[in-house]
Amino acid sequence: LSLSSRKFSPLSAMAIEKETPETEAPPTFLRDGSTSSDTVRGRFEKMIRETQDRVCEAIEAADGGAKFKEDVWSRPGGGGGISRVLQDGAVFEKAGVNVSVVYGVMPPDAYRAAKGGGGDHKPGPIPFFAAGVSSVLHPKNPFAPTLHFNYRYFETEAPEDAPGAPRQWWFGGGTDYTPAYIFEEDVKHFHQVQKDACDKFDPSFYPRFKKWCDDYFYIKHRDERRGLGGIFFDDLNDYDQEMLLSFATECASSVIPAYLPIIEKRKDTPFTEKHKEWQQLRRGRYVEFNLVYDRGTTFGLKTGGRIESILVSLPLTARWEYDQKPEEGSEEWKLLDACINPKEWL
Amino acid sequence: LSLSSRKFSPLSAMAIEKETPETEAPPTFLRDGSTSSDTVRGRFEKMIRETQDRVCEAIEAADGGAKFKEDVWSRPGGGGGISRVLQDGAVFEKAGVNVSVVYGVMPPDAYRAAKGGGGDHKPGPIPFFAAGVSSVLHPKNPFAPTLHFNYRYFETEAPEDAPGAPRQWWFGGGTDYTPAYIFEEDVKHFHQVQKDACDKFDPSFYPRFKKWCDDYFYIKHRDERRGLGGIFFDDLNDYDQEMLLSFATECASSVIPAYLPIIEKRKDTPFTEKHKEWQQLRRGRYVEFNLVYDRGTTFGLKTGGRIESILVSLPLTARWEYDQKPEEGSEEWKLLDACINPKEWL
Repeated sequence: LSLSSRKFSPLSAMAIEKETPETEAPPTFLRDGSTSSDTVRGRFEKMIRETQDRVCEAIEAADGGAKFKEDVWSRPGGGGGISRVLQDGAVFEKAGVNVSVVYGVMPPDAYRAAKGGGGDHKPGPIPFFAAGVSSVLHPKNPFAPTLHFNYRYFETEAPEDAPGAPRQWWFGGGTDYTPAYIFEEDVKHFHQVQKDACDKFDPSFYPRFKKWCDDYFYIKHRDERRGLGGIFFDDLNDYDQEMLLSFATECASSVIPAYLPIIEKRKDTPFTEKHKEWQQLRRGRYVEFNLVYDRGTTFGLKTGGRIESILVSLPLTARWEYDQKPEEGSEEWKLLDACINPKEWL
Repeated sequence: LSLSSRKFSPLSAMAIEKETPETEAPPTFLRDGSTSSDTVRGRFEKMIRETQDRVCEAIEAADGGAKFKEDVWSRPGGGGGISRVLQDGAVFEKAGVNVSVVYGVMPPDAYRAAKGGGGDHKPGPIPFFAAGVSSVLHPKNPFAPTLHFNYRYFETEAPEDAPGAPRQWWFGGGTDYTPAYIFEEDVKHFHQVQKDACDKFDPSFYPRFKKWCDDYFYIKHRDERRGLGGIFFDDLNDYDQEMLLSFATECASSVIPAYLPIIEKRKDTPFTEKHKEWQQLRRGRYVEFNLVYDRGTTFGLKTGGRIESILVSLPLTARWEYDQKPEEGSEEWKLLDACINPKEWL
């Protein structure tokens, strides 16, 4: 009877292999071992790893003391990841920035559903490739907002029994903003940076992805959103592939200018116990959304992904009070109202 | 844009009507308005309401100051409930004891699956009745354990288009024990009281329901259990109905003798910040189990049950640290080991 006697048991048909800890991050997690700048895979991996480096540097500088702890892991069949976590810093309660590169196999039905339309060819299981950067940043000060961002790229291989079949690819991602209190100038700044990034590519992107974000981060059982939105998109492949790669890169580059100025402004704001309790209650909502609705989290838990990396999105501390209702007109009420009735901030 | 403009939107095919607050608990929530001692429904409702009264009295006495706050609610078509919550007391961080009586309609497929076998009659939607008492008690002291119990009775009406079809009924429930630290004498006492209640009815009950409990309160993605078990059973109808009603009544009566002596012994034990943090991490696991796996919770969230009553099971505060691993051989490690490898305590 010992902890080390635990065995990994596949949890579903899509379970993926158990990860192995590594001492050092390799130049690439791609199977072919190259850091090719010719493939979208190679360029996407380079982009997410640079994003991870830049965001971690900026967060450490803003925190002014605490350092990220890094865990590198790989999987026997190829792929792996780098998890970086800063915990209990001066400014940040918990900040996680992960990259991962995953090779897996998807059931043919899921593949057919994703690419739309049946066709007469019935493929076998489809090998896939997925890479992404994912981050949640929870500050300590109740007036400083939580930020989440995630940019990912997904590609299917040609099925083994149909080597000529076309590869499919998709981009997904977004950046969203979750304060406990509203400072209108902060929310406007955050949304403006998202809109500026979108507008460089397509004027329809910001309104479309802003609404998608409001729809996605919806806590059904509360009839309220997790926070004040941002942008979100998924399964995007109806634009030029190069254009979408540039767009995802632009969005990832916008994280620091969208967020860090707000952190600098709010990290030292004096607060009371009551402010802290409200922040903790909103952190409880964050937990509810992530464990009950978030696709990345629920998929990861079901397929046996690296649990500590998946659940790093949860706050260090959270709170649930029975039937807590903010007083009408209060600052807490204004936040809740904006989570229930999403606003146009620009 | 106001909170009062929120509309209830049915969340699934099985969504139930929105509840109405009531100022006082009626003698019965049954549709026919009687408090008949002739029907199992009537006797079960009486039992769960007496259980609620007795447990709340005992918890208030143990807390020595805080009082339960009561919310009564009803539904237009019949049924309702009483939620009682004690929050931030001297001994208890959060204690919730709810009773509810629900009338609903279940899809015919679910009914056919539940009663086993098809038959040639295809029924329409099946009206059902469900009543239960449900409670989670979270103490403040990290050496005092959390307790959960739930006893419920479920009955289908005859389908409207087949008035002669037989009614089906089921009992379910259990009591389980979730400490942050193991005191072997406490765990043995708790399990012994469960076994004694079981043994009055059938010698196979304790071993069977003890294993069922270990299997049910399993956090798959962690490969560990929520706590140290107890008893659990569901969809039980393969015994005499009177016998099962007595058994559920006996189990509910065993809650106080199983739990309160342990609370009295541990509520004032001195503790350090480190003990409190470990308790908070285990509370985080409690949240993970309830939001991801618990059938009552996930069903309630999907069908639009009374959210505050459903989520009263969540602790007042919880904690998630990245990659926290107790030192081998420590008291924290012993608890985790027992959650990973369930033991026979008797």
